[in-house]
Amino acid sequence: MLQTIAWTGHAVRLLDQTRLPLETVYVEIVDEKQMWDAIKRLVVRGAPAIGVAAAFGVYLGVRGQDFDSLADFDRRLNQVCDYLATSRPTAVNLFWAIDRMKRVSQETRKQGSRGEEQMAAKIQQRLLAEALTMLEEDKQVCRKIGEHGLELLSGLRTQHSGLSILTHCNAGALATVAYGTALAPIYLGHERGVPFHVFADETRPLLQGSRITAYELREAGIPVTVICDSMAATVMKEQKVQAVIVGADRIAANGDVANKIGTLGVAILARHFGLPFYVAAPISSIDMSLAGGGQIPIEQRDASEISNGQGRQTAPDAVGFYNPAFDVTPADLVTAIITENGVAMPPYPESLRRMCRRG
Amino acid sequence: MLQTIAWTGHAVRLLDQTRLPLETVYVEIVDEKQMWDAIKRLVVRGAPAIGVAAAFGVYLGVRGQDFDSLADFDRRLNQVCDYLATSRPTAVNLFWAIDRMKRVSQETRKQGSRGEEQMAAKIQQRLLAEALTMLEEDKQVCRKIGEHGLELLSGLRTQHSGLSILTHCNAGALATVAYGTALAPIYLGHERGVPFHVFADETRPLLQGSRITAYELREAGIPVTVICDSMAATVMKEQKVQAVIVGADRIAANGDVANKIGTLGVAILARHFGLPFYVAAPISSIDMSLAGGGQIPIEQRDASEISNGQGRQTAPDAVGFYNPAFDVTPADLVTAIITENGVAMPPYPESLRRMCRRG
Repeated sequence: MLQTIAWTGHAVRLLDQTRLPLETVYVEIVDEKQMWDAIKRLVVRGAPAIGVAAAFGVYLGVRGQDFDSLADFDRRLNQVCDYLATSRPTAVNLFWAIDRMKRVSQETRKQGSRGEEQMAAKIQQRLLAEALTMLEEDKQVCRKIGEHGLELLSGLRTQHSGLSILTHCNAGALATVAYGTALAPIYLGHERGVPFHVFADETRPLLQGSRITAYELREAGIPVTVICDSMAATVMKEQKVQAVIVGADRIAANGDVANKIGTLGVAILARHFGLPFYVAAPISSIDMSLAGGGQIPIEQRDASEISNGQGRQTAPDAVGFYNPAFDVTPADLVTAIITENGVAMPPYPESLRRMCRRG
Repeated sequence: MLQTIAWTGHAVRLLDQTRLPLETVYVEIVDEKQMWDAIKRLVVRGAPAIGVAAAFGVYLGVRGQDFDSLADFDRRLNQVCDYLATSRPTAVNLFWAIDRMKRVSQETRKQGSRGEEQMAAKIQQRLLAEALTMLEEDKQVCRKIGEHGLELLSGLRTQHSGLSILTHCNAGALATVAYGTALAPIYLGHERGVPFHVFADETRPLLQGSRITAYELREAGIPVTVICDSMAATVMKEQKVQAVIVGADRIAANGDVANKIGTLGVAILARHFGLPFYVAAPISSIDMSLAGGGQIPIEQRDASEISNGQGRQTAPDAVGFYNPAFDVTPADLVTAIITENGVAMPPYPESLRRMCRRG
């Protein structure tokens, strides 16, 4: 079993996803700088996994240090949190996890009346415990997304013996601690004997679909067919898939979904061909503070990901490039949003609010 | 000035497009086997260029040989034609060019009453002349497509000082003898001082957009921005382009268009965002013998183009791949078809018939 993130007792062990699919290499992260770099370079990626990784990053940034005062500790904690928040701008789980760690610090201090030095040590302990809790919670959350998603997909099974699903990028086990979000219903269905087949968009420029989704599905024994992103329209036209499921990096209060670049195009194609377009994401990916997707910051990445993506230059020098890492799919193209608290259907402003309150 | 195809007096000189954009290498083709291989491997590609290359291939296959009889010559000619016809199945220009060469052979023989051996030599001469004619014609045809296309695009210019166009794959100078089809209006406009900007889909798996379109536009001094295919939706949503123009490998009598894989998706996106979707192609790409696009044979290419496309393995072993080289865009998504004889508008069954009769 592949492990995206694990705590060794002294370090965070990450599966280096930049080396997949040919090398299965784990790296040990011992401080917040290494964690920032791991998130930035996509050693660890996927909104839920980024959240958990950032939580550990916060702990690593303050652990084992002596602080003269709680004010001193707070300065350091805020510095670490602000720093980690600059690693990637789009996935809201990063900010959600950092905020949660800050809250743990504040709440711990309210509880006791020890000396400042002791309190700083106590908070450090609690921060580690919180990161470990988030690690465990993520597995449970993904499992529940799987349950709700599988139920939803089962509705499509009447005419088909199995189910064939198109996905974009990787919202599988390797985007989370385990199971994944978009792929969770497929893993769960596979465990229960539902024959699934996945068409995986390779997902340029960084090829998370061919490198990671295809890899983890193969490891799990689930049939997968890799296509170029440009082939999704033909796959739908030829009725090779019955639904689309993707993950999300941030969902606005109105149901607009920021996800890996290319998701918007897939959603428009699904609409054109009359296929359901499902988004699977934990409640922590929903940003109720944003009214619409237009307010979601979109990360722009380096042109070399396009021009020199696979170790060879494939575009001439001295031309322009445009490389947004995410796009925003408007809510009206989204058939349903699958969370751990249930399935939100349009109108999303109400259904998402309800989902966020539950649980 | 780059030369896609040229006749040196003893060989066909092709720009080896598999080596672009980093190396500008020309290869000399001296027999039909080399030409078959050059077409198959995409050393020369683009429907119009394939047609001209195949015409020379027919000549190379019979030149300089002694034939005992005209029957003997015919056997050889048919063998060469049948062989070249197996190089790539989708672009109809290949078959159009081969048929035209066969007709030249038949017509030449009707004209004279020489000895059989002399007649075989005469036909060889005529075949070379015909290939050279097709080379020249292609330039004229593309130039006319440029004129008609530029007029059409000028209609979009009222609100914009310049024009920004999205294209997929390469239907430029390097897909033809000169000028190109989809890019012809842009080259012509550029010559006349119309400021054009092109967004070029990189066009996976073989990256003709980033390797070839970006290269030839840069050489011509036309601003070009390379994007991954999955970014076209965002580019349209952000109103960075005012129209889409692509080429065609084969157009059925009803206006359905076979073109590079990914074209269908771009057409659906253009429709979604209310942008015109234009196809530019010579009359020789129109196959009036096919009622609809469903009858166009679609070339399936090797999985390694996806899994090992850029010299490095980017997908795991033992997974499935699907690699159709073309897709079919239904006529109802096509705003207009630009030919050398004018612009065909829906309904296409009539307008295409009219275009084919003209000229």
